[in-house]
Amino acid sequence: MKTVYFDNAATTSIRDNVIDKMSEVMKSNFGNPSSTHSYGRQSKSLIELSRKRIASHFNVSAAEIVFTSGGTEADNLVLKSAVRDLGVTEIITSKIEHHAILHAIDQLKKEYDITVKYLDLNSDGDIDLSQLELLLQTDTKQLVTLMHINNEIGNILDLKKVAELCKANNALFHSDTVQSVGHYKLDLQEIPIDYLAASAHKFHGPKGVGFTFLRKNSGLRATIFGGEQERGLRAGTESIHNIVGMDEALTISYSNLETERNHIKTLKSYFIEQLQSVFPNVSFNGQSGDLEKSTYTLVSVCLPISAEKANMLHFQLDLKGIACSKGSACQSGSSQNSHVLTEILNLDDLQKPSVRFSFSCFNTKDEVDYVIGILKEFVIS
Amino acid sequence: MKTVYFDNAATTSIRDNVIDKMSEVMKSNFGNPSSTHSYGRQSKSLIELSRKRIASHFNVSAAEIVFTSGGTEADNLVLKSAVRDLGVTEIITSKIEHHAILHAIDQLKKEYDITVKYLDLNSDGDIDLSQLELLLQTDTKQLVTLMHINNEIGNILDLKKVAELCKANNALFHSDTVQSVGHYKLDLQEIPIDYLAASAHKFHGPKGVGFTFLRKNSGLRATIFGGEQERGLRAGTESIHNIVGMDEALTISYSNLETERNHIKTLKSYFIEQLQSVFPNVSFNGQSGDLEKSTYTLVSVCLPISAEKANMLHFQLDLKGIACSKGSACQSGSSQNSHVLTEILNLDDLQKPSVRFSFSCFNTKDEVDYVIGILKEFVIS
Ligand SMILES: Cc1ncc(COP(=O)(O)O)c(C=O)c1O
Ligand SMILES: Cc1ncc(COP(=O)(O)O)c(C=O)c1O
Repeated sequence: MKTVYFDNAATTSIRDNVIDKMSEVMKSNFGNPSSTHSYGRQSKSLIELSRKRIASHFNVSAAEIVFTSGGTEADNLVLKSAVRDLGVTEIITSKIEHHAILHAIDQLKKEYDITVKYLDLNSDGDIDLSQLELLLQTDTKQLVTLMHINNEIGNILDLKKVAELCKANNALFHSDTVQSVGHYKLDLQEIPIDYLAASAHKFHGPKGVGFTFLRKNSGLRATIFGGEQERGLRAGTESIHNIVGMDEALTISYSNLETERNHIKTLKSYFIEQLQSVFPNVSFNGQSGDLEKSTYTLVSVCLPISAEKANMLHFQLDLKGIACSKGSACQSGSSQNSHVLTEILNLDDLQKPSVRFSFSCFNTKDEVDYVIGILKEFVIS
Repeated sequence: MKTVYFDNAATTSIRDNVIDKMSEVMKSNFGNPSSTHSYGRQSKSLIELSRKRIASHFNVSAAEIVFTSGGTEADNLVLKSAVRDLGVTEIITSKIEHHAILHAIDQLKKEYDITVKYLDLNSDGDIDLSQLELLLQTDTKQLVTLMHINNEIGNILDLKKVAELCKANNALFHSDTVQSVGHYKLDLQEIPIDYLAASAHKFHGPKGVGFTFLRKNSGLRATIFGGEQERGLRAGTESIHNIVGMDEALTISYSNLETERNHIKTLKSYFIEQLQSVFPNVSFNGQSGDLEKSTYTLVSVCLPISAEKANMLHFQLDLKGIACSKGSACQSGSSQNSHVLTEILNLDDLQKPSVRFSFSCFNTKDEVDYVIGILKEFVIS
């Protein structure tokens, strides 16, 4: 059966080179990086080499990179420790952050005496920087956490502006950059951000590994305790093959960045054109229909389809081998409405089926044509 | 150069079958288990199959197994949630637990109003069950956490007895079974334990994955928040290849258990004999010299060597390609004395060099002879 994988914002396939490298490491480098003998030192040097390479992509020092078991743990580490160890008593965020942020904050609210302020969003899902600026006028110890690229609607935050605003107002700034790392270059000497979180499986690396950038002297402390791994910031024997795989995937992504971005952007643009010609009343959620204001990797479409047909839509797409997403696939088996779309769509559009299509360098124009062909069957006649 | 890997308690090599299976999964099953399309369902069914197989080895139900990023996280999850969510106000443990337990408890002491009681240890590193029983005579909500097999001295706890004692006295019981899972069969219908923690890299599986057994209706809650993975108990996209690799490694370990145990036990016994004939004054730390009272997988030797020669010992072993451990390799680059040996050895023995040799099914009698040959050079003449 033909299959088309248009769900790259949920997760990506792993590059062959990455798998080969990981297998090689698993075969040849099994020593515990904490052991002082040659087996251990070999493993240690592998992860430190990966740390250095990863740091170099962001123009930061290796000591500022802490490996985690993924994006979720990275987000949790920052939020938890900022509140517990740095005395943050107010968090500023928005309701369309990933659950790794929102649910971590919910838990912190239960455990600590903190205030959480959610920024207003316009119907495109954008925040208002002047509102943020206003909220920062206080002596309260604040942490701002806003994602760089929204995983459902693709909106791009002006990281540099927000970071500068936070810095000017003595607020800490964390960004969930899980959807942008590997797809956008970030120079963290230019962007005065304090922390960021990333996950390898979003850029053709392995699942179950990620990292957080903690700017020098961050003051953050561990949330998992045990051995002295990661300089005391994250205990547990390191997943060497996963770390090396992440490094490899990131390095390939950044060295192919321009070519792959052009390829994907062309596909997205073509997909949008085709959708508009098939469904004259189609609309795009958030900024995702705007090639400049949203990431090139995804589009979220609100389809003008009758209620009866809507029920068939996902079933039919699945039947035809097309993988895409209703909401965010990070919400396990969620058939309920996406919390992101619920925040920004009007009631009318919320009734219509929304689908997120997200692309990778391995997708083709043929695949777009195939998907458009299937969607055509749903045009209201 | 000849190399001998006698540090299997620090970590083990990954079985070829396991690597092959993991590579296959990475190539063919990259879908996000949270996605509802066919790619996602395939991944989901892989991890649920692994969960079922793992559960079956312990005679428990799949719903009682929660995947984590390793043994450390598994230990932390249990301790943290027992205090935070179950109202545990007293923890009973011992000073020779792994740092994943001890340091997690230290942190809990800072964050919560709890009492920690450390059981006395005799010079063999064994606890006194009657002291435990006495401490359990209280109305305080207690959690007992004692490891099944000590990673440094190999002592075996009578899990069943302790579990029954805890149960009879309404205390919760957690065991760090990181050193025993894959090496000892545990029937958790026979042993009324509440929680246990395991790590794949100790039984020829991948690093960076483990699991915790939480008995039905445990009441424990997540410590990492985000998506609904692991039925809400552990957020973050699942490391599918690591989980499948862990399952494969565990299944192979348990199906080869008898043969491999016999092989390893014979090596340990031979190693002890040879040591005794080379160093008439050799002593063994904890119970590790006793084939019945300690795990068959390791021996911790206190060598009667002069101070000058002792300095050369590890250097020489490393030079000759022999990997073994001074203390526990889980303590990153630790040149300081092991916290375990410090607890149980007398001052005299603490001055002498102690070395832990730990074995796997891939070791041979020839390797023992080679190591003994090198150690001979250190005999006080
Ligand atoms: C007894 C014991 N508990 C916990 C751990 C930690 O497990 P992991 O390395 O998977 O975090 C180890 C070894 O590393 C161990 O030997
Ligand atoms: C924006 C965003 N943040 C965090 C995560 C969580 O990362 P991980 O799956 O590695 O835990 C995801 C996706 O899963 C995401 O899209």
